[in-house]
Amino acid sequence: MKQVNYKTIFNDIFLELKPIEKKGAPASYIPELCNVDPDKLGIHLSNVDGEHFYQGDSEERFSIQSISKVFSLALAIRVIGQKLWTRVGVEPSGSAFNSLVQLEHEEGIPRNPFINAGAIVVCDVLITYLQDPKQELLDFIRKVADNPALQYKQSVAESEMMTGDRNKALIYLMRDFGNIHNDVEQVLDLYFYLCSIEMNCRELARSFMFLATHGMDQSSGEMIVSPSQAKRINTVMQLCGFYDEAGEFSFKVGLPGKSGVGGGIVALHPGKYTVAVWSPRLNGKGNSYMGMKVLELLTTKTEDSIF
Amino acid sequence: MKQVNYKTIFNDIFLELKPIEKKGAPASYIPELCNVDPDKLGIHLSNVDGEHFYQGDSEERFSIQSISKVFSLALAIRVIGQKLWTRVGVEPSGSAFNSLVQLEHEEGIPRNPFINAGAIVVCDVLITYLQDPKQELLDFIRKVADNPALQYKQSVAESEMMTGDRNKALIYLMRDFGNIHNDVEQVLDLYFYLCSIEMNCRELARSFMFLATHGMDQSSGEMIVSPSQAKRINTVMQLCGFYDEAGEFSFKVGLPGKSGVGGGIVALHPGKYTVAVWSPRLNGKGNSYMGMKVLELLTTKTEDSIF
Amino acid sequence: MKQVNYKTIFNDIFLELKPIEKKGAPASYIPELCNVDPDKLGIHLSNVDGEHFYQGDSEERFSIQSISKVFSLALAIRVIGQKLWTRVGVEPSGSAFNSLVQLEHEEGIPRNPFINAGAIVVCDVLITYLQDPKQELLDFIRKVADNPALQYKQSVAESEMMTGDRNKALIYLMRDFGNIHNDVEQVLDLYFYLCSIEMNCRELARSFMFLATHGMDQSSGEMIVSPSQAKRINTVMQLCGFYDEAGEFSFKVGLPGKSGVGGGIVALHPGKYTVAVWSPRLNGKGNSYMGMKVLELLTTKTEDSIF
Amino acid sequence: MKQVNYKTIFNDIFLELKPIEKKGAPASYIPELCNVDPDKLGIHLSNVDGEHFYQGDSEERFSIQSISKVFSLALAIRVIGQKLWTRVGVEPSGSAFNSLVQLEHEEGIPRNPFINAGAIVVCDVLITYLQDPKQELLDFIRKVADNPALQYKQSVAESEMMTGDRNKALIYLMRDFGNIHNDVEQVLDLYFYLCSIEMNCRELARSFMFLATHGMDQSSGEMIVSPSQAKRINTVMQLCGFYDEAGEFSFKVGLPGKSGVGGGIVALHPGKYTVAVWSPRLNGKGNSYMGMKVLELLTTKTEDSIF
Repeated sequence: MKQVNYKTIFNDIFLELKPIEKKGAPASYIPELCNVDPDKLGIHLSNVDGEHFYQGDSEERFSIQSISKVFSLALAIRVIGQKLWTRVGVEPSGSAFNSLVQLEHEEGIPRNPFINAGAIVVCDVLITYLQDPKQELLDFIRKVADNPALQYKQSVAESEMMTGDRNKALIYLMRDFGNIHNDVEQVLDLYFYLCSIEMNCRELARSFMFLATHGMDQSSGEMIVSPSQAKRINTVMQLCGFYDEAGEFSFKVGLPGKSGVGGGIVALHPGKYTVAVWSPRLNGKGNSYMGMKVLELLTTKTEDSIF
Repeated sequence: MKQVNYKTIFNDIFLELKPIEKKGAPASYIPELCNVDPDKLGIHLSNVDGEHFYQGDSEERFSIQSISKVFSLALAIRVIGQKLWTRVGVEPSGSAFNSLVQLEHEEGIPRNPFINAGAIVVCDVLITYLQDPKQELLDFIRKVADNPALQYKQSVAESEMMTGDRNKALIYLMRDFGNIHNDVEQVLDLYFYLCSIEMNCRELARSFMFLATHGMDQSSGEMIVSPSQAKRINTVMQLCGFYDEAGEFSFKVGLPGKSGVGGGIVALHPGKYTVAVWSPRLNGKGNSYMGMKVLELLTTKTEDSIF
Repeated sequence: MKQVNYKTIFNDIFLELKPIEKKGAPASYIPELCNVDPDKLGIHLSNVDGEHFYQGDSEERFSIQSISKVFSLALAIRVIGQKLWTRVGVEPSGSAFNSLVQLEHEEGIPRNPFINAGAIVVCDVLITYLQDPKQELLDFIRKVADNPALQYKQSVAESEMMTGDRNKALIYLMRDFGNIHNDVEQVLDLYFYLCSIEMNCRELARSFMFLATHGMDQSSGEMIVSPSQAKRINTVMQLCGFYDEAGEFSFKVGLPGKSGVGGGIVALHPGKYTVAVWSPRLNGKGNSYMGMKVLELLTTKTEDSIF
Repeated sequence: MKQVNYKTIFNDIFLELKPIEKKGAPASYIPELCNVDPDKLGIHLSNVDGEHFYQGDSEERFSIQSISKVFSLALAIRVIGQKLWTRVGVEPSGSAFNSLVQLEHEEGIPRNPFINAGAIVVCDVLITYLQDPKQELLDFIRKVADNPALQYKQSVAESEMMTGDRNKALIYLMRDFGNIHNDVEQVLDLYFYLCSIEMNCRELARSFMFLATHGMDQSSGEMIVSPSQAKRINTVMQLCGFYDEAGEFSFKVGLPGKSGVGGGIVALHPGKYTVAVWSPRLNGKGNSYMGMKVLELLTTKTEDSIF
């Protein structure tokens, strides 16, 4: 990797994308997300040496939504290791809209831990193995983020519960196949709280740092997950982090990453850096319109990807 | 129709089928149904002139299960008429096992009122339009059966509720598409009670008589449904009464009919007769193994079908 | 059946449908069919007693297209009987557009003999068992139509061959599963010639008469198929004659029938009559818009259906 | 990357896998592939500095089959660049067995260039843009392999043509959707010849070196593809190189790679090395049973993957 002036690059990217800043629309199905200013745009990159580069609304918190599914996955792997993969797969799902279809054909085993069905199964695992799942999950997120002030946002969790019929269909179908072991309401409660976490770009980049440092926490040196586990989580992000746009993101950005319908995207270069970007307008596949473009330009301009 | 000696024909059929009387196995997924003697076999035919012909265990009650869906359909048509068909279709479902798949592709509108999803929507309609849906539905069944003693069997209804995850997946998926208007628990409660009715072959044949008499009750002369409505209910039975064995049943028997996993089958020849048969062992498609054979032999020997 | 004045009824129906006579559009994918006047409308009803009733353009010939699949089915049944059903099913297909999907899931066995894949398999059977399949098939159609002048229309057959990629995909997929035994080009050639037959409404009604008379030819008394075979062909028409509108047609018309993209529909009441109607404008499902309405009004006004 | 003694590691891996060397079975559907000794096992790793490490039957040639699809993709990208992606996608296919299903739902645009349908479209593109496609494709493979002696194996190509009904179904379905522009026979001929190439492990590792060196040929310094194109080809391999075992391979091996039913697998670490392994017995997903294990152990023991 050649020496990179991120500050200049961020400036260039923001200028270059100015003409398309109104493309896409924020998620509308979760009422709480509708109140966000759709024109926000922020980026924060942290490297493994502790340097920070940022631009725009990078200090403003937003709902990270599905990005949290990486945390629940990491915690479940920490708790039960390899056994997790008897309950959920590691294959791309092929299509955003057929999760119920695949779930029926594949007898209740979700394709991967990032589609809704898979993340729900991960929550079910956490409930089975943890004493106080909701608190311990929050503690784990606070630990990897090195930030004890992070909170679930109850109003967002409740807002999602009101509109959660599709997720209920998923969980009952999986229970019919024997792949849900706990009370349905309790599992969904944990799932919706998981998705209600808010962070800003800096916090998000920090919280994914352990995946860029082979599992080790940057500050404390504690092993959050093993190097092999970190590698595998990164792999799952690469293949499944963007629903049925995983190929497109890999193709254009070339880094493992995860998006959320709140408009956040986090990506990372193992051994090098993590980067979080936020822009609430989404493209037709449910990923941040500008966020995808910002990261594509970033790895193009730095000529730096894992491939 | 030539003059037919049903007594002799029933005798012949029972003899002829003796060698295969142990084929198939009773439904095992509803605990309450497991206690039934699997070797029972009964038939009762009632014609529009009030004659009765029967053989075997025709006076023993059994759980009619999905056969009841014809009653809920008839009541819903009586209550809201043509409007029902905006909520549920009249097309065969194509496959027994893909109801969730079709439901997702077709945006929450079930293919027909006899697949589980369709019968659940019909219950939702009854709840919207009736004051006391559970009682009024029972009253309607008692009326068409001319039998005020018929009852829901609470233990069967509760037994099914315990194993009803697949049905919950269906109803939440439909609610996600806006095709369920009432409380999910209330709708499923009505649905499971509907399926818990018990009758014997004679009672079952009697309760379907209005569909053989152009909608008119045989005793009272009251119009249960209009002639046109009776015809249409018969059509839906012909095309959708046997899940993905509807073609097979039509092909071999040539009469509209409806089966239930309790091993009952009812069929009818418009303007002529109704016939109910019961044998608990099921074939691979979930229809009574012997019941299908009995009716096939019946219409073959009498050379009498609607086609 | 009450005494019916068909002449009056036809008059009433034509008047009543006048306001919607421009609904729908003729098939456009077969160039040869585009040259037809879309405003044609004719009907011809023949009863088993030899009476005839007709109205409109009932003497003008049109391309009967898929209606011919009933003739190839009847001939195949005549030639190999029950064995045919190991090669093709008798179940409704569930959806017009998923024939390749179902065919793949169900390993090359088409759902029924009226979807394209099924009719192609029937042609493959005829080629295996007949000396001169194309001539013998034409001879059979001439025989049931009591009309030695009927001809294949070569220009229509060739026009379809030019646009037959979808059918080639179907036949190669079936051959991959081992369900095509002859040369692909020869099978498709027979298939396209089969669909190129032209008749007028009177001829069409005549050619289906053997299915209303339990298999016996009306003039010669020859048994074309056995009574049981006639009944089963009628059943397959009832369940599968209108692609994924079979339920709708059964529901509204209540008779077994078969449609073609040339705008023809034939239906029959076993033991009573056959009726052919022709109007080239199609509805969204590929069936004659006016043809469906005419037959719906006919059975409504005569209060006469098999159900 | 720590200093690695590949010779020792290869020895250890071969010893460790000894107990499972009889697992799986060679592909049986292509007659020409059945004559291969199923117990062969070879590996060859070449790094960007020109060093070579190998073990076992690494000098014996085998049919590389689908691995060749990377060459046709690279050539198509070289010829028409970005425009290729209007004809074929970059998303994982989700399931090995539903290519016809997806192809129908997605209107003839294959998911990616490595499923059969996608590779066929790439061949169609080459035929449109090249003067002498079959010779120019072979010349391109010889160039990237730095080996003018490589040849198509006619007997293998012809063997596949005899069993190619499924591929014919795919190509006709795509032509029906307008996504095949040339003569079907010519396209399939190129496709089957493409898959008939034979190499040994050393040659295979050499021929993929341009993808580990940002597109530049190791010997001549010529740019085969641009750095950005090389990166994108690697991405597509990562996501789609192993049919519906892409996730599994990424998860366990952590490198972009491509397998063939001849039992070959090639993988590469951008900027570091390429590695080819060959063992003809396949697992249930059609990938080399031992080949997968060898590469999993390799990246585990060297603690070296892109993630």
